[in-house]
Amino acid sequence: MGGWAIALHGGAGDIPLTLPPERRAPREATLRRCLDLGAAALRARRPPLDVVELVVRELENCPHFNAGRGSVLTADGTVEMEACIMDGNTKKCGAVSGLSTVVNPVSLARLVMERTPHIYLAFDGAEAFAREQGVEIVDASHFITPENIERLKQAKEANRVQIDYTQPIKGQQHQEAPCIKGDSQIGTVGCVAVDGDGNLAAATSTGGLVNKMVGRIGDTPIIGAGTYANPFCAVSATGKGEYIIRATVARDVAALMEYKGLSLKEAAAHVIENVPKGNVGLVAVSSEGEVAMLFNTTGMFRACATEDGYEEIGIWPSRVDG
Amino acid sequence: MGGWAIALHGGAGDIPLTLPPERRAPREATLRRCLDLGAAALRARRPPLDVVELVVRELENCPHFNAGRGSVLTADGTVEMEACIMDGNTKKCGAVSGLSTVVNPVSLARLVMERTPHIYLAFDGAEAFAREQGVEIVDASHFITPENIERLKQAKEANRVQIDYTQPIKGQQHQEAPCIKGDSQIGTVGCVAVDGDGNLAAATSTGGLVNKMVGRIGDTPIIGAGTYANPFCAVSATGKGEYIIRATVARDVAALMEYKGLSLKEAAAHVIENVPKGNVGLVAVSSEGEVAMLFNTTGMFRACATEDGYEEIGIWPSRVDG
Repeated sequence: MGGWAIALHGGAGDIPLTLPPERRAPREATLRRCLDLGAAALRARRPPLDVVELVVRELENCPHFNAGRGSVLTADGTVEMEACIMDGNTKKCGAVSGLSTVVNPVSLARLVMERTPHIYLAFDGAEAFAREQGVEIVDASHFITPENIERLKQAKEANRVQIDYTQPIKGQQHQEAPCIKGDSQIGTVGCVAVDGDGNLAAATSTGGLVNKMVGRIGDTPIIGAGTYANPFCAVSATGKGEYIIRATVARDVAALMEYKGLSLKEAAAHVIENVPKGNVGLVAVSSEGEVAMLFNTTGMFRACATEDGYEEIGIWPSRVDG
Repeated sequence: MGGWAIALHGGAGDIPLTLPPERRAPREATLRRCLDLGAAALRARRPPLDVVELVVRELENCPHFNAGRGSVLTADGTVEMEACIMDGNTKKCGAVSGLSTVVNPVSLARLVMERTPHIYLAFDGAEAFAREQGVEIVDASHFITPENIERLKQAKEANRVQIDYTQPIKGQQHQEAPCIKGDSQIGTVGCVAVDGDGNLAAATSTGGLVNKMVGRIGDTPIIGAGTYANPFCAVSATGKGEYIIRATVARDVAALMEYKGLSLKEAAAHVIENVPKGNVGLVAVSSEGEVAMLFNTTGMFRACATEDGYEEIGIWPSRVDG
């Protein structure tokens, strides 16, 4: 075994190289804080399942990423959050969709996994379960930030279902970027971790797409699409959910290792290459402590660390990033 | 290419060998009618995507299977139906969950695929979309049959989440079977088809589990779990959804063909063997016109036909069945 490793993301998409410092800095700071938090937890021998939950909660609490507090809005101006968590050894997993008042969807997903006979609860039933379990609930308005109201307005004006949440919004001093191309993609947050014994876990959380139809479910809560873990690897994907679902992205990384004998990096590269360019990113770790952070979008907010001291925090492809 | 082929199922589970004739006969008659309908459509060169939708609609309209009209009830006594459809060549797909008034969920899944930028709509948003599209809607009470009210009552008395819907219900003249073991499984309906050019499609529809929590989503609408099609094969699974989700059953059949070079039958057998016994069944067809109908439960209502004249309709393993 290769020691512990952790990788996390804050979404892949059409992140402009001109992203202004005041939009870039808080996101990089959050990635750093979450990476340190997760690495410290792994050093303290906390189980990977706890570590990915802990890190994703922190990312959900950050208003700069599209999950939890920073969730984007549906076509009706509401928030419908989803999340998923999975344990590699047991393949136990939990998922939730359609949450509008739960502060940390990833923790509710874990409760579905641990305290129900089911894997996946959605909408009113998931909200009722949250109340029954006594998790932290707030008024739905808590999640509706001025930035996301503005993003929805712009998306509606452009008749787009999605818009890159990293783009400047109106009213800021920066030049309004011309309308990003219609299939531009917004983020999601996720984390994968492995301990020194090869125990793996993955978690993902999202607000979905700006201007999505009410009731739309994306890849995040779909086991094998946005989130997957087994004894080979743990994967969290991000990008345009519909492409991720069709390509069963997260399961395919693992299946290529399991059935074709590829390494984690080979498997991840194969999957990313076979999804239409501009749509998908993923972070993954293997039971051996390898890390892969790949995307075919302009960029992906990401960070990783391994037991042997390697660390990386990045947004765009590494060569550009340096 | 090996000519057209079709396979369909009406659910795998703990179907007692003593199933009384009046419970067996209408189901066998429906399997026969649906098989003939699908085979005739393939002979008439209708696209496999149309064929699987047509057959699943017919199965949904039959009150003897757990989908559409015959959907079992949630813990609150309500109906929450789900369905999925997928085209092999394009991997385009559509899915719905949480329907309570839509007569044919599989057709709504197809409309999600064809008329929205999304793949998957659920609960209120899916119901709103159904109204907007003008599909056939009925009062939710239409789906609540006396048999399913009784099944829910029994399940609640036994504190079970699920119960085999093939079992005798109280008030019938037959000896009440002792409580089926707690993990006994109810059905689902599904169909897979391939035409003479190797075009593949899969569709699945279900009412879920008796006494399921409100908001529970099972494997049926999850691409890669209960339903999957690609250029190699089309698969529809049935059984205990939570096992099917964890094992990404439908995608794994295809992945074993794609990444490990197995035949359809080998791939299907490998997947079924690796899911805990008593939980899962599937029907699948390959682009070459091969058929697999496998299960590790007591039985699976199933039927298949191929262009070269082979036909099979069965409930229990073939040796017992004969």
